[in-house]
Amino acid sequence: MSHPPMNTFRDRLSGIVYGGDYNPEQWPRSVWHEDVELMRAANVRLVSLGIFSWSALEPADGTFEFGWLDEIMDLLWSNGVAVNLATPNASPPPWLAEDFPETLMVERNGVRVGVGSRGHFCPSSEVYRDRSRRMARMLAERYRDHPALAMWHIGNEYHSHCFCDLCDDRFRRWLQDKYQSLEELNRRWGTSMWSQRYSDWAQVHLPKPVRGWVNPARELDFARFNSDIQLELFTRERDLLKSITPHVPTTTNFMQFFRLNDYRRWAEELDVVALDIYPNPADPAGLAKAALQYDLMRSLRAGQPWMLMEQAAGAVSQWPINLVKQPGRMRLGSYQAVAHGADAVMFFQWRASRFGQEKFHSAMLPHGGQNTRTWQEVLALGDELTRIADVATARTHAEVAIVWDWENWWAVEGCAHPDNTYNYADVVSSHHQALWNAQVAVDVVTLSADLSPYRVLIVPNQYMMSEAQQAAVRRFVENGGHALISYFSGIVDQDDQIIPNGYPGGLREVIGAHIREFSPLAPEDSVAVRAVAEQSLVDDAFAATATRWQDDLITESARAVAVYTAGELAGQPAVVDNALGAGHAVYLGARLDQPALDSLIRAVLDRAGIRPVHAAPAGVEVTERRTADRRFLFLLNHGQDKATVRLDRRGVELLTGQVVDVGHELVLEPAGVVIVKSPLA
Amino acid sequence: MSHPPMNTFRDRLSGIVYGGDYNPEQWPRSVWHEDVELMRAANVRLVSLGIFSWSALEPADGTFEFGWLDEIMDLLWSNGVAVNLATPNASPPPWLAEDFPETLMVERNGVRVGVGSRGHFCPSSEVYRDRSRRMARMLAERYRDHPALAMWHIGNEYHSHCFCDLCDDRFRRWLQDKYQSLEELNRRWGTSMWSQRYSDWAQVHLPKPVRGWVNPARELDFARFNSDIQLELFTRERDLLKSITPHVPTTTNFMQFFRLNDYRRWAEELDVVALDIYPNPADPAGLAKAALQYDLMRSLRAGQPWMLMEQAAGAVSQWPINLVKQPGRMRLGSYQAVAHGADAVMFFQWRASRFGQEKFHSAMLPHGGQNTRTWQEVLALGDELTRIADVATARTHAEVAIVWDWENWWAVEGCAHPDNTYNYADVVSSHHQALWNAQVAVDVVTLSADLSPYRVLIVPNQYMMSEAQQAAVRRFVENGGHALISYFSGIVDQDDQIIPNGYPGGLREVIGAHIREFSPLAPEDSVAVRAVAEQSLVDDAFAATATRWQDDLITESARAVAVYTAGELAGQPAVVDNALGAGHAVYLGARLDQPALDSLIRAVLDRAGIRPVHAAPAGVEVTERRTADRRFLFLLNHGQDKATVRLDRRGVELLTGQVVDVGHELVLEPAGVVIVKSPLA
Amino acid sequence: MSHPPMNTFRDRLSGIVYGGDYNPEQWPRSVWHEDVELMRAANVRLVSLGIFSWSALEPADGTFEFGWLDEIMDLLWSNGVAVNLATPNASPPPWLAEDFPETLMVERNGVRVGVGSRGHFCPSSEVYRDRSRRMARMLAERYRDHPALAMWHIGNEYHSHCFCDLCDDRFRRWLQDKYQSLEELNRRWGTSMWSQRYSDWAQVHLPKPVRGWVNPARELDFARFNSDIQLELFTRERDLLKSITPHVPTTTNFMQFFRLNDYRRWAEELDVVALDIYPNPADPAGLAKAALQYDLMRSLRAGQPWMLMEQAAGAVSQWPINLVKQPGRMRLGSYQAVAHGADAVMFFQWRASRFGQEKFHSAMLPHGGQNTRTWQEVLALGDELTRIADVATARTHAEVAIVWDWENWWAVEGCAHPDNTYNYADVVSSHHQALWNAQVAVDVVTLSADLSPYRVLIVPNQYMMSEAQQAAVRRFVENGGHALISYFSGIVDQDDQIIPNGYPGGLREVIGAHIREFSPLAPEDSVAVRAVAEQSLVDDAFAATATRWQDDLITESARAVAVYTAGELAGQPAVVDNALGAGHAVYLGARLDQPALDSLIRAVLDRAGIRPVHAAPAGVEVTERRTADRRFLFLLNHGQDKATVRLDRRGVELLTGQVVDVGHELVLEPAGVVIVKSPLA
Repeated sequence: MSHPPMNTFRDRLSGIVYGGDYNPEQWPRSVWHEDVELMRAANVRLVSLGIFSWSALEPADGTFEFGWLDEIMDLLWSNGVAVNLATPNASPPPWLAEDFPETLMVERNGVRVGVGSRGHFCPSSEVYRDRSRRMARMLAERYRDHPALAMWHIGNEYHSHCFCDLCDDRFRRWLQDKYQSLEELNRRWGTSMWSQRYSDWAQVHLPKPVRGWVNPARELDFARFNSDIQLELFTRERDLLKSITPHVPTTTNFMQFFRLNDYRRWAEELDVVALDIYPNPADPAGLAKAALQYDLMRSLRAGQPWMLMEQAAGAVSQWPINLVKQPGRMRLGSYQAVAHGADAVMFFQWRASRFGQEKFHSAMLPHGGQNTRTWQEVLALGDELTRIADVATARTHAEVAIVWDWENWWAVEGCAHPDNTYNYADVVSSHHQALWNAQVAVDVVTLSADLSPYRVLIVPNQYMMSEAQQAAVRRFVENGGHALISYFSGIVDQDDQIIPNGYPGGLREVIGAHIREFSPLAPEDSVAVRAVAEQSLVDDAFAATATRWQDDLITESARAVAVYTAGELAGQPAVVDNALGAGHAVYLGARLDQPALDSLIRAVLDRAGIRPVHAAPAGVEVTERRTADRRFLFLLNHGQDKATVRLDRRGVELLTGQVVDVGHELVLEPAGVVIVKSPLA
Repeated sequence: MSHPPMNTFRDRLSGIVYGGDYNPEQWPRSVWHEDVELMRAANVRLVSLGIFSWSALEPADGTFEFGWLDEIMDLLWSNGVAVNLATPNASPPPWLAEDFPETLMVERNGVRVGVGSRGHFCPSSEVYRDRSRRMARMLAERYRDHPALAMWHIGNEYHSHCFCDLCDDRFRRWLQDKYQSLEELNRRWGTSMWSQRYSDWAQVHLPKPVRGWVNPARELDFARFNSDIQLELFTRERDLLKSITPHVPTTTNFMQFFRLNDYRRWAEELDVVALDIYPNPADPAGLAKAALQYDLMRSLRAGQPWMLMEQAAGAVSQWPINLVKQPGRMRLGSYQAVAHGADAVMFFQWRASRFGQEKFHSAMLPHGGQNTRTWQEVLALGDELTRIADVATARTHAEVAIVWDWENWWAVEGCAHPDNTYNYADVVSSHHQALWNAQVAVDVVTLSADLSPYRVLIVPNQYMMSEAQQAAVRRFVENGGHALISYFSGIVDQDDQIIPNGYPGGLREVIGAHIREFSPLAPEDSVAVRAVAEQSLVDDAFAATATRWQDDLITESARAVAVYTAGELAGQPAVVDNALGAGHAVYLGARLDQPALDSLIRAVLDRAGIRPVHAAPAGVEVTERRTADRRFLFLLNHGQDKATVRLDRRGVELLTGQVVDVGHELVLEPAGVVIVKSPLA
Repeated sequence: MSHPPMNTFRDRLSGIVYGGDYNPEQWPRSVWHEDVELMRAANVRLVSLGIFSWSALEPADGTFEFGWLDEIMDLLWSNGVAVNLATPNASPPPWLAEDFPETLMVERNGVRVGVGSRGHFCPSSEVYRDRSRRMARMLAERYRDHPALAMWHIGNEYHSHCFCDLCDDRFRRWLQDKYQSLEELNRRWGTSMWSQRYSDWAQVHLPKPVRGWVNPARELDFARFNSDIQLELFTRERDLLKSITPHVPTTTNFMQFFRLNDYRRWAEELDVVALDIYPNPADPAGLAKAALQYDLMRSLRAGQPWMLMEQAAGAVSQWPINLVKQPGRMRLGSYQAVAHGADAVMFFQWRASRFGQEKFHSAMLPHGGQNTRTWQEVLALGDELTRIADVATARTHAEVAIVWDWENWWAVEGCAHPDNTYNYADVVSSHHQALWNAQVAVDVVTLSADLSPYRVLIVPNQYMMSEAQQAAVRRFVENGGHALISYFSGIVDQDDQIIPNGYPGGLREVIGAHIREFSPLAPEDSVAVRAVAEQSLVDDAFAATATRWQDDLITESARAVAVYTAGELAGQPAVVDNALGAGHAVYLGARLDQPALDSLIRAVLDRAGIRPVHAAPAGVEVTERRTADRRFLFLLNHGQDKATVRLDRRGVELLTGQVVDVGHELVLEPAGVVIVKSPLA
């Protein structure tokens, strides 16, 4: 895996890039001129253009209208705005659906969707593929030498999930490639269960509705296939574009907590990672969850800076009730992305639409125009970001890693589990929240990554583990690492088959304990947990409440850290600690309340000698980015009150230009941001 | 728009008409004779006949059996019962479905429904149209001279919502008629959004399931089309009947809070409005909601008396739990309809069915027969209504109007709005409840109506406003009217496109303020609101609680009436008051609790000089109907306790015959009714 | 109806049979040998084999692989394990679906399900029937003389519910058989309602989706048909097997509270009843509900011992959260089944699967192997059951019967009822809970059974009653029986048509009262009920709370037992008592709280002279089984505390071997079991 820097992109767009999606086809030409004038005012330097322009560019099969796009490309460039030009495959025009109905997506229940929205294509249709590549080719050939062309934005938020006959065929071929023989498929899908054995490839289909519980192995492979088939759409267009514009970087926009695509595989194929994120302002955990997504985006390509491609300037319209971002919070969230490695701050979209599905999704330029708080904040941020241009290209240094794994996500939320209310995103988020509360730097990895850079590894509910991954955890610990592993980990292999040797088959020696049975708690029940005296990990006062889950855990080489105080498992360990080689594995056999999880993870960090990036009050997010000779300290006050931080270094506060010395007391207003640039010690 | 009086109907059925649906085909002939005997006992004067008789009249295509209907028509007439004869198109017979499957309705998901219920027809099918018209013609020709024939009941509760290919074709033609050119459709549907631009009419379809959010403009047009196509079914049958029986009035039965049909357009085509209403006895707001529906029915045809066509004598069977009407409450509800302009009190149905889907829906004659409370109350009411025959044809005089607009309903509950939990019926009902609590007379209008008769206009959340409607509100205020407009009004035009000029584009000058952004509140949050000192509208003690919604409202020419006391908008106005020309517009930028909304609306009424119809304690409904020389005061005690009203006029209490003078203290029992006839002062 | 004893089965499997489902096709041969060794250790004597083996036995149409089954049959027999051999029709192989798509089940909405789960067949398909019978024939012919063959397990948990065209045809023929003439169908389906009259058999279809409420009579007949068509699958295979192995008993496994199949009709066709039951450990009423199911299974074949065919050794995986069975509770539940007449204690399944939909469903041998609590308890129970071998074949003697009737279940939960939240299983369970709390023996019957053996008859909400059933209740009371009948009984006949004569038409003379109307209560409301002074049934202190339902009940010959103290029905009776002939009918016109229902039913039992099986504290379940000369007393402590029982007889405590005398104080630990064998007095 190599992650080449985005040289071409950097040539044109140094510093922190600012901009947004631009949809001029929704507006008359008179508005275009106001647009570019206001873009200049706001310091907009890049717009994503043409994402939904297919029907405007090709109103009928083979009939093209590029004149308006030529004009807008020129207009933008003449105003200093570069273009992240889209291939418009995300929303094929109505004529494609009418002329070739097989290009339309089919839902699991067999309903073929129609036009009038977006993302309605079948990813397997050769007609769709042909027409979307023809469009991509024409765009590349037309604008290959246009000075505004800075990047390719291939498609948009790929999210098809098609169950049509074409996909059925393609899934079968995907399976043939994977398994080679039908016997191998039978073995790994467990078809000896419930008489599912296939005797001919023609019998193998994608998962249509069934009478009863679904085959989890087939569901898992279909999830893998669905991610792959869409990635193939991306890579085929990318290869085509690269053949014409080899120096123009390519990306597509990822989504937050998006289950359908294994973005780790996708990131391999991109030149730069780009994220669309819309945290719900009504979710109090929204900011820590955003930090998890940002750490993930940075980690997907080995720490390479990424682009915040879409965020909302204010409210969105997708939730039941859509709260606005309070004053200063859009700015704060933008800096949060930069603090976690973003080199671009962009929005959906430049100007609020007058019609359609997203007219109440806020924009940089609201319906109320310049006479709005949102526009004033957009203007101010565009100006301010120029002051931190030096931050661009700086990297994050983390000694802590947390596991986020799409394959595990697909598997652990499968059917007929001990806890069928399980939510992987929530569980990983609660573990990441503990790290966020501890103000340490975190990378987001899988167990297939190189774990050697890390001293602490957090493994939340890694139900599915290949043999190599089992070995990787063991090696990590034996080599001196500190692992914290949560319940329902190491249970099945990559085919969703139970790993033998008693639970957790894949981790038994690592955690020095085994589980006799899983013992979930009724939703209304909880059990108190308290520390064992004289264990060496947590404070003796450690206390927790377990809900939803308990393991019936029996120590082998491990020592109990905390035990249940009531119920059938009273006296049995809820947390154990196992010394293995030069390291330790801590295993958590229950779901604990957040403060207890915070304490436990802080204890693991302490033992590993991991310190906060900088001392700061609770609620202040602290990160650091470094270049070869400089470091940038980010302090972000997410609280509702002022916060004071006594600085541990000297440097320059970039947003004010103030020189600050060791011991200086920085006062952060609510939603306040401080960025201190210092020489690398 | 002209609303001719129902002369033919009046010729036969003076006074307050009493009766119900009659389904003799469910019973042997022996029962028919008991039926007519008991109808005479109950003073039943009109029955709706034949609504579900198609398969009994035409058991196979072209095979007719009218003998039983001849017999029942004669039997009824010979017992003094007139007939509201139905064309039985609401439930085509099984043979039509079997011989012509394309006559069956298709759900949005593509499932074609089967027989065994009702309303299962495709409104576009020419076969269905032909066979239902043939039946209508045969009925008209057969009974044109029958003395019992008093009215035509065309169809029943039209509620089809079909997504079949025939409807798809017809929708396309409807759009071609409306837009003439495809470019116009593209512009007004906003198809430049998400690449939806059509390049050929063949690409335009009704809204099938899509992958993502729906196009709101297409949904809106499909709602309009669906109402129109069903109205077309009605008008085609009506024209046919009129050609044969020109003097027989026609109607069809409307439903309460029914979203599919724009009954305002429908009412134009009827001779008399008829309503089916089943308030849930478990809903404490049920009575005020019923009053809103009754005011609406009266207003649909400019105050012309209407028919309460269906109500339940007791419990229904459609709710999860079906409560009975407590003693006296069926009587009270019947008088409530009359108090709001009804000249008929009818029921579904005469005799409770022994089988089928509605066997537990109560009837005038229950399963328990004459030995039931329900029958006793039905008997008593039939007798009593003869005492108020003079009320018939009297009109209501209202100086207050409230807006209820189907097009707005369709639009304001669209997808991807700031508040996607919004319920238009509840919001309008809460505004009407305030008027009901204030005991004033109210008409129900749209902004396209002649507003000149009114001094107060209540505009609840009129999200969608055409330019003409915007101008109408302005003119109303400038001419001295008092308008109360609630939040999320004046936002989009008739194509669901944002009206430029900042929110609310359509009302900014009228309310003398603009909104920088919508600022919904989380469901669990609320913000206190209090009056501004020395404003002239509400009492200084006015206080309210805002939930769900806040506007970030900036006054221009308006003055603040009440402000938020906390939150990000603390100190900003929640209610503003703008003097414009000779009138005032009060704008409410938040959702207030009911008592506060009551106070605010009462303040607006007071300033406009609107007085209650008659002084009465809370919980007593007060209305008045007038003829050229008389007026009828209705006092209805909805409370659980006695209420006393000191009369402001002299007259005769119609139900007792007692002469009453000014100052007389009328004592109303719980569920008590008093009707005082006086000369018009 | 004759219920021959299972002689052949007894020949081979005396005592209490122990074992479980065995799925060797999921495991390599090496595991088979460990399996049989551990089976011996656990005293396993019977395994259900081959339930899901079709695709392993016939991997392609007409290609057979019986070698592995030969081998496992021999291996089992050589280790003393007999085989309950399955015909594997429950899960046809993928080739059948691929070669004959019409064999796949179609859901009501028209979606044809695919393979990958189980139960996906169309019961009407001749191809499916042919192939499944061919397989059954080959199994019977191959193993007819195999010594291991002890029983036939035909299919598995029949639960198809198919709406395809083949079923549509077959349903039509079923209706033709039932009604002979279309006029009769029209009359009994009430097709004069809503114009549903059929004029040709071709118009008659199974109930596809409709626009509105469904025809209840058609739904009811389709429920009958669906049970019948599946039973036909069973009987055709059974006839085939009997023709080849006439002496091998046949069964299929029933499910708990399973609505689709009328197991009473099914039981006629079986040699022995078998039950699969998975009470949710999180349901506090789970044990009493289990007792109801056990009493039902025993009663289905006139008291003949039955088989607990499947239970879980620990947790299942089908609930949202799956709790484990706490220590001792699996043993307790197993004895509970025996206490209610089971002669077999079996599990699903022997060894926990490594893959597929049920891998987290617990097994006798868990993933953790012998080093688990579950296995230790399985081992111990297998040993212990040998001590109570004498219990086998003993019968239960009950003088109390409760009605459980599938036809009523289908009807009473129909649409458009006064209470549409009604749950028949819950209501019958609450009545049975009262009997369970009273510690009396109970049979479970319909009103078509011979009621003469009983002194008390509990009739919970028997909405549907044929004329014969109405007469049976009357005869039961007149002959000296004591009936307790709950509200909404005797309302409709077997066609779901209201029985004339006022509510409850079918029971009016029996209960000596009539109901003017049903008066449900809002979910949040309740009304207090208290005893009438000097009535002779309940204690004067009797008090109850009514929720959901009240009858407006008027006594005729009956006397009021308890009355409402508030609301519109204040002073009217909630419970009445009618002396009729030599007996009494108590009618309950409301839904009472459980303690009040307990009191009322205890009062009825007392008056009938019904005593508990044995005095014991609350929470101790008490049953007795008898042979010609012995009786076995079962005492099961379901509580969390110790319980003491002073014995009323002498005998031998079978589990300990201790001789015990009258007055001996037996101390039952929590989850403790005592079984005392005594001579029959």
